[in-house]
Amino acid sequence: MPKASIKSLFGIALRALREERGYSQEELAERAGLHRNYVGSVERGERNVALENIVKLAGALSIRSKDLFDSLP
Amino acid sequence: MPKASIKSLFGIALRALREERGYSQEELAERAGLHRNYVGSVERGERNVALENIVKLAGALSIRSKDLFDSLP
Repeated sequence: MPKASIKSLFGIALRALREERGYSQEELAERAGLHRNYVGSVERGERNVALENIVKLAGALSIRSKDLFDSLP
Repeated sequence: MPKASIKSLFGIALRALREERGYSQEELAERAGLHRNYVGSVERGERNVALENIVKLAGALSIRSKDLFDSLP
């Protein structure tokens, strides 16, 4: 079985941090200036998220971007 | 004057870490499995680098991906 992909690890981390704050996907998306469907697809590990959106998502969670990488290699 | 972009901050960080290790852009690119021209454009702040390449670049530098984000918000 393949190990969890980078995209999946990031999505799992994003979801955990979002839920920790009690935000819905829609609330997080609005705070980040992104679309709710996009946030959902990131959390499902479907997106190879790039720098600018990583920083937007971190800002919406009031964390540093590096904190989204704690579970990544 | 606009502040440094996210892409530029990442590029500056990548270059500093690469030079710290004494790698040329070509050596880093080869270690990461990426093209030398791509690494150059990342360092110049021209690329909105995504998760999978962030992890490849970090691996090529023998660091964690989060260490590339120390200077980013």
